[in-house]
Amino acid sequence: MRDYLPAENELRDRLLSEIVRVYKANGFRHIDTPAVESLENLENSDGGDNLKLIYKIQKRGQKLENAVAEGDYDHLCDLGLRYDLTLPLSRYYAAHKNELETPFRCIQTGRVYRAERPQKGRFREFVQCDIDILGSDSLDCEAELISVAAEALLQVGIRDFTVRVNHRNLLRSLIVFCGIPAEEADTVCVTIDKADKIGFDGVKEELLGKGFGEAETGKLLGILTGDPTLEQLAEAGCRAETESISALLGCANALAEDRYAVRFDPTLVRGQGYYTGTVFEIDCPSFGGTIAGGGRYDNLVGKFDGSSVPAVGFSIGFERIYGVLAERGMKASERDKLALFYDEGQFVEASKYASSLRENLDVTLVKKKKKVGKQLAQAEAQGYAFAEFLENPGERKRLGGEKQGE
Amino acid sequence: MRDYLPAENELRDRLLSEIVRVYKANGFRHIDTPAVESLENLENSDGGDNLKLIYKIQKRGQKLENAVAEGDYDHLCDLGLRYDLTLPLSRYYAAHKNELETPFRCIQTGRVYRAERPQKGRFREFVQCDIDILGSDSLDCEAELISVAAEALLQVGIRDFTVRVNHRNLLRSLIVFCGIPAEEADTVCVTIDKADKIGFDGVKEELLGKGFGEAETGKLLGILTGDPTLEQLAEAGCRAETESISALLGCANALAEDRYAVRFDPTLVRGQGYYTGTVFEIDCPSFGGTIAGGGRYDNLVGKFDGSSVPAVGFSIGFERIYGVLAERGMKASERDKLALFYDEGQFVEASKYASSLRENLDVTLVKKKKKVGKQLAQAEAQGYAFAEFLENPGERKRLGGEKQGE
Repeated sequence: MRDYLPAENELRDRLLSEIVRVYKANGFRHIDTPAVESLENLENSDGGDNLKLIYKIQKRGQKLENAVAEGDYDHLCDLGLRYDLTLPLSRYYAAHKNELETPFRCIQTGRVYRAERPQKGRFREFVQCDIDILGSDSLDCEAELISVAAEALLQVGIRDFTVRVNHRNLLRSLIVFCGIPAEEADTVCVTIDKADKIGFDGVKEELLGKGFGEAETGKLLGILTGDPTLEQLAEAGCRAETESISALLGCANALAEDRYAVRFDPTLVRGQGYYTGTVFEIDCPSFGGTIAGGGRYDNLVGKFDGSSVPAVGFSIGFERIYGVLAERGMKASERDKLALFYDEGQFVEASKYASSLRENLDVTLVKKKKKVGKQLAQAEAQGYAFAEFLENPGERKRLGGEKQGE
Repeated sequence: MRDYLPAENELRDRLLSEIVRVYKANGFRHIDTPAVESLENLENSDGGDNLKLIYKIQKRGQKLENAVAEGDYDHLCDLGLRYDLTLPLSRYYAAHKNELETPFRCIQTGRVYRAERPQKGRFREFVQCDIDILGSDSLDCEAELISVAAEALLQVGIRDFTVRVNHRNLLRSLIVFCGIPAEEADTVCVTIDKADKIGFDGVKEELLGKGFGEAETGKLLGILTGDPTLEQLAEAGCRAETESISALLGCANALAEDRYAVRFDPTLVRGQGYYTGTVFEIDCPSFGGTIAGGGRYDNLVGKFDGSSVPAVGFSIGFERIYGVLAERGMKASERDKLALFYDEGQFVEASKYASSLRENLDVTLVKKKKKVGKQLAQAEAQGYAFAEFLENPGERKRLGGEKQGE
């Protein structure tokens, strides 16, 4: 977990608020859920490997004493930190759906926690930034999520990305079509999901290692790597899915207006077990790969209230885009900073004058020391664009630091 | 801990961003620290009763196995959720001070956690909103914090508040002056702190119950409730403190310009053990009492790096002001919402038309159902100001819901 210095955090603020602004303009509503969830809910979610990474919170008071008295080390905890925003959203929607619009378009931005080994660009506390549409099974939702997320990325200055789309059933049908039993489809998908890391040679090796036949594996990978058309795949037995993908590509590309491409990728898996239909990802080579991902999860809300609520979501990889934009030196604010120097005893006068400048500037009061030159150098190093001295109001000194703003 | 519905959360967003906007314009920098801290740091802070309310996070992996193998129930946890923002700030400043301005004006907004019994207006997860100035012992800092926090409150529409100021040494000197031993001053302060709940009769009863003499108790309460002047208290032996309070009142009232009053209150205590000098609170009767509080804490950073760093902070009671403003029906957004109705198959056309309207409106796409009347009623109930139908672009129907904005 990490601290953020002012310039870092202000850039994070700016990025997040730009994204949220685009989402709100598109009719999405910003909600918030606690970072702490019941451990039972967390552990009963289809969170895959994330379940191993949950931070668990110890019981308190009498409950803890009782658990200790029973010598039961396995039940000392009753709460946990959320590992994503989708599980809390499903609980939230089940609890509040009568108070919400149908369909419900929602924005979530918040911290999530995973007890992973720290590595470059991966933190144990990090921000997710999701949009979801609950309560509609229309394919328009997928098209809308793709278009709105892409618009948010364009808004923060990200270009040259591609949206890849697949349907979960399509890959599964293809696997069965190639002679592999349906009950083995999950494990095959897990291996195919690694293709961007281990390549298709690696996938082949792993599938053979898992005991699948040379013929079936060869047929499957032959089709997948052969850039198959949707029509070819329709012949593998899932015409409904290829038709919906085809319709989605049509809509999404019409909205893209050549600013980005939306294309079919039969090898796209997405790891989470809870996806039930369409899945999609946004890739941007200059940002090191995948920067957003999502899909349809029609069964997750039902875990809480037994109802059947169609749902689809899209998550921007906030930490990745923040990391790249910060490295590129994107500035946090469009407002310039001014340091206003005053002498001992002039605080009230300086404050009043500073107030008169604040419509367009962030103004910091600085009490003059003997070595003003050193203070000016510090202000410059901290990104101040201007300095002014109370005794010479209006005489603005430009500091060497570049003007703020992109 | 609680969920926030869209209108609630959007109002929280708005309040927080207005407050942060005022703080940034005044040269404060927005930083961020993890919600999770080392349990050792949390438990070694002068957090008073808050230390009993820490949510503790269990160790993971081998560390947990080792602790269990040793049968050591008391050391199964190594992390905890922060109970305030001041302790993390002190750790942060000690770690990063070479990269920060001197003095360092900072803003923190974030969730904190206390395992309290839930009650009206109190939550186990809640937002704090702090400003602090580190690295300066100038009294200008106190005046600036009071002025800037008051400006933020005025900005979100809060009026009729009063700032009360005291100095910790002043009350302690007075206690000793009345014949109570210096080492008993803390417990006397704890009792005086309850005056707004139990009244001064209650304070007297509790002090006598604690074994203090009738004469000493009577003298102390006689002075405290007699609306003493600073000059009278100076005679009790702390002229330096009364002079600094007097200077602070002068500055702070000059900046208040009659929009609020800043006055001396010899009975003001503030609970936290870490305060070392000036303490202050903002009261607003129409908001049910105290809505902000703070003070000087010159020894907290030193706990982390042994250095001596003067520091002073002010915290707005965000949950309280949010609660009152929400009850009063303050609206979350100045932008109106429009529902754009379209027919099946018109999604792309509707999306493009909606985009053209979004500069000044939040536009939601709504696929028409057979019962459009019911859909319109729902939109109205959800706060939409307008509806429009794609087949009649520009023909805007005003919904009964009042116009958004304050």
